[in-house]
Amino acid sequence: MRICSYVLANGTRSYGIVDGDLVRDVGETIRGQYPDLRAALASGVLSDVAEGASGSAAVPLDSLTLLPPITNPDKIICIGLNYMGHIKETGRDAPSHPSIFTRYPSSLVGHDQPMVRASVSTWFDFEGELAVIIGKAGRAIPAERAMSHVAGYTCFNDGTIRDFQRHTTQFWAGKNFDRSGSMGPWFVTADEFGNPADQSMVTRLNGEVMQSTSIADLAFDIPTLIAYLSTVCELLPGDIIATGTPSGVGMFREPKLFMKAGDRIEVEITGIGTLANAIVDES
Amino acid sequence: MRICSYVLANGTRSYGIVDGDLVRDVGETIRGQYPDLRAALASGVLSDVAEGASGSAAVPLDSLTLLPPITNPDKIICIGLNYMGHIKETGRDAPSHPSIFTRYPSSLVGHDQPMVRASVSTWFDFEGELAVIIGKAGRAIPAERAMSHVAGYTCFNDGTIRDFQRHTTQFWAGKNFDRSGSMGPWFVTADEFGNPADQSMVTRLNGEVMQSTSIADLAFDIPTLIAYLSTVCELLPGDIIATGTPSGVGMFREPKLFMKAGDRIEVEITGIGTLANAIVDES
Repeated sequence: MRICSYVLANGTRSYGIVDGDLVRDVGETIRGQYPDLRAALASGVLSDVAEGASGSAAVPLDSLTLLPPITNPDKIICIGLNYMGHIKETGRDAPSHPSIFTRYPSSLVGHDQPMVRASVSTWFDFEGELAVIIGKAGRAIPAERAMSHVAGYTCFNDGTIRDFQRHTTQFWAGKNFDRSGSMGPWFVTADEFGNPADQSMVTRLNGEVMQSTSIADLAFDIPTLIAYLSTVCELLPGDIIATGTPSGVGMFREPKLFMKAGDRIEVEITGIGTLANAIVDES
Repeated sequence: MRICSYVLANGTRSYGIVDGDLVRDVGETIRGQYPDLRAALASGVLSDVAEGASGSAAVPLDSLTLLPPITNPDKIICIGLNYMGHIKETGRDAPSHPSIFTRYPSSLVGHDQPMVRASVSTWFDFEGELAVIIGKAGRAIPAERAMSHVAGYTCFNDGTIRDFQRHTTQFWAGKNFDRSGSMGPWFVTADEFGNPADQSMVTRLNGEVMQSTSIADLAFDIPTLIAYLSTVCELLPGDIIATGTPSGVGMFREPKLFMKAGDRIEVEITGIGTLANAIVDES
């Protein structure tokens, strides 16, 4: 099952089931009880969501203003260096633990919404990633049971202001510019996605392949990440784990290649689809 | 004016005006409109809060279970290296930009609530800090106007699991263990606190002074921090900026000194008061 989140014409935020190019809204009854996908995940009622949506009229997906599938996650946890190709291109050694930083929801837009290049920098880079969406709360989750805490997956663009990322050792400043990243186009349930290691990801800038990897090449796999993160803090339904980007980012190309207004950046993951965003300058 | 947040005997979360050892609850009418201090700050109604509380019976402060003054901040932004004494003890040079990491609200408890030493580490360290609470939203705030965005201040203990902090270059893992830090005891309005540079801070472990500084010794002062942070993202009412810790943390003592069950850790700031917490082992 695929579920997207969006703004209705009257300004209400809602979510619905994706069926090809069409979306069926969950409807007012379900939305009254579970105002967003995070609430529905937390209550374990995705089957009710599907049933509620089955009675709704189908509307074209491209008529909707999409939001990140989870609009209000408690946590967006990002893994910094998690494909050996990218680790090597940054000049680092193989890590003993996952590198973790965070993004705020305000730093992300949905599919087909513009990503904003801040006026203070021209070093605006892309990072295609697979994002894991937690479905079941847990602390100190053993790796063997970690996948039972995953509700689903989506595509993630960890858009980065590279010079701000390098102001200090801490990545935060480069990773949290308002509307500088994106997530979507929709949430794909874990049963539909299958084994992440069987999937692959491509990042394209204006149609040209920039990054290409098998998800199997993750340095720390998803169970290992969940076990480590949940050693630190309780993971909650709707929490996002952006699993890291492979090699090929603009920063380490010769010459460097950054995004500018008018560009189109896409992150495509097999089993999910394509997250695409136009780049605009900060107004 | 001083405002604290707490849990009422019936389990309801509320907040009230502190008057010496007594607290006057804001009452149901105000709480119905502004369920927490963040909502009251966002609506700019602190005078209504004071008026609502004036009709309430005073209860002893120590009869209440205190929460962090802002229980649900959108952001808890922490400054990593911001007093030269601490920067030197970590072996680093003077920074060109603020080092930033984040904490989740789940990592903080209120005054007089136990801070939890995780079972996976014995390297549980204290970091006394002044926390700034934002009152007015803003992006790209010039330093000259930054102080007009500050609603008030509180004490902050940026409790840290040192070995996890050092797993990678990113501080997140050492800074986000559930209930490993604290904030409080209350929010002091900016008009009452006055110029932060006129205040001083002491951290005591079991009554012994561990850290002592003037707030004037901040490497990046509060206007500079607000200007930098708001270059990246919009700051919102209730956002917390923990301004960094001075020298004297346990990690760089000879021999190292970490907190253990039964210890009492205090952060006292002139013009605010004392944030005190007992240490307990994770159960």
